[in-house]
Amino acid sequence: MTFMEKLKHSSQVNRSLVCVGLDPERTKLPECVREKEHALFEFNRAIIDATADWVCAYKPQAAYYAGQNADEDLKLTIDYIHERAPEIPVILDVKRGDIGSTATMYAKEAFERYNADAVTVNPYMGFDTLKPFLDHADKGVIILCRTSNPNSGDLQNLVCGGKMVYEHVALLARDRWNYNGNAALVIGATYPEELRHVRELCPDMPFLVPGVGAQGGDVEKVVKFGCDRTGHGIVINSSRGIIYADKTENFAAGAGNAARELRDLVNSFRD
Amino acid sequence: MTFMEKLKHSSQVNRSLVCVGLDPERTKLPECVREKEHALFEFNRAIIDATADWVCAYKPQAAYYAGQNADEDLKLTIDYIHERAPEIPVILDVKRGDIGSTATMYAKEAFERYNADAVTVNPYMGFDTLKPFLDHADKGVIILCRTSNPNSGDLQNLVCGGKMVYEHVALLARDRWNYNGNAALVIGATYPEELRHVRELCPDMPFLVPGVGAQGGDVEKVVKFGCDRTGHGIVINSSRGIIYADKTENFAAGAGNAARELRDLVNSFRD
Repeated sequence: MTFMEKLKHSSQVNRSLVCVGLDPERTKLPECVREKEHALFEFNRAIIDATADWVCAYKPQAAYYAGQNADEDLKLTIDYIHERAPEIPVILDVKRGDIGSTATMYAKEAFERYNADAVTVNPYMGFDTLKPFLDHADKGVIILCRTSNPNSGDLQNLVCGGKMVYEHVALLARDRWNYNGNAALVIGATYPEELRHVRELCPDMPFLVPGVGAQGGDVEKVVKFGCDRTGHGIVINSSRGIIYADKTENFAAGAGNAARELRDLVNSFRD
Repeated sequence: MTFMEKLKHSSQVNRSLVCVGLDPERTKLPECVREKEHALFEFNRAIIDATADWVCAYKPQAAYYAGQNADEDLKLTIDYIHERAPEIPVILDVKRGDIGSTATMYAKEAFERYNADAVTVNPYMGFDTLKPFLDHADKGVIILCRTSNPNSGDLQNLVCGGKMVYEHVALLARDRWNYNGNAALVIGATYPEELRHVRELCPDMPFLVPGVGAQGGDVEKVVKFGCDRTGHGIVINSSRGIIYADKTENFAAGAGNAARELRDLVNSFRD
């Protein structure tokens, strides 16, 4: 199955538009796992076991593994998801963007070394830096458009020819970069009006929507403005709000509850 | 010493504005090193020994290590440069850009795990995603401005309020992001007119200039348009043109010659 098929399937089977961000920080882990070998993986494994019925995707953030010298934990985590919940796609959040020969190496990293189903990429350098990812027709390529962070407007909101830079990205993705039908966009939950607007521009493209939970995005608006006409088309990511919902040895159950509650909250707005 | 001091010092001591890009690809290595344990590092070590008198910086491209499951080789390479040529700064080319909490993890990766002197970053997501790097006042933060690849104009050349996006980046870097005096810009050698223009906008900021050699940039124009008023201020990177100058077992001597020749060619256009 392609990423797009896998995502559609998992959304339907689990009746869920929720993605869990697997961004574990060693110092924030419960004491019962912190000292274990491969502590980040052990933490993730328990979270995955507890949430696999409530989510449509997992999204490990590569920086947490790279910054903590834990590449092996990332590999173990993705392998475990494929084994434990093979119907759920893995989005490797790396936000890569580099010249063609280098982007080819990054595509190897994401799709061969780590066996991810999809990857996030940065469009600043233009089409030839995205092509080595987009050429993998079975993989998802999720392009930063309007990001959730406070200063995302520094460049993304500059107005060029009557359209903001993020609108140009949405239109380039729709009209030029989606030749394999595997492109998607990142739109932050913290900018619901922009989410509504990009949905108008791109009625059929999936959106990865981070920024609910710790970053404060409004779930109701995300669902109402972000869903496509089939009531799907968004992947709502929560990281800290789920993985740290309970900081005791019951963290996994707490994460399971938080994921189910977010799924149910999202579904309550889906008519 | 800060990155900026180290770079100034190495440029003067070696009378060089040349940076060697350490982007080894296993299948392209000479047979005599290809099968060794830590082949990428062994290749790099020989290149470093042969070029250390002719360069002002080294720039390993993280993708080549990440994509070939060779993080250890990257660590060994940077450690070796610090030991063998402690006066020469290491620019870790990663082009990161992510929300604050994640960028903090990437800064740990670059500055703690790998002990780089400088890092490349992507400005698409705005100031708060660059701040975790810029706050390290002793480290260099080299921001993508006008990149060397063919489609870099897709976003970078959009005109907003009379200025192209890459000009906005140059002005933001100059006026708002350089609060610690540690910001620099990436300008591709393949766009010499833009290089001249950004030098006018930012007379005192160092530029990392990739794109000579395999990508075809014109060295004379890079030097004439890129240097600051002291005849410094540019770091001209060549990767494939130096590391693959000779593909036999004499590869290291070939790289040394290529680095020296590029240094001398660059210097022939200075003052």
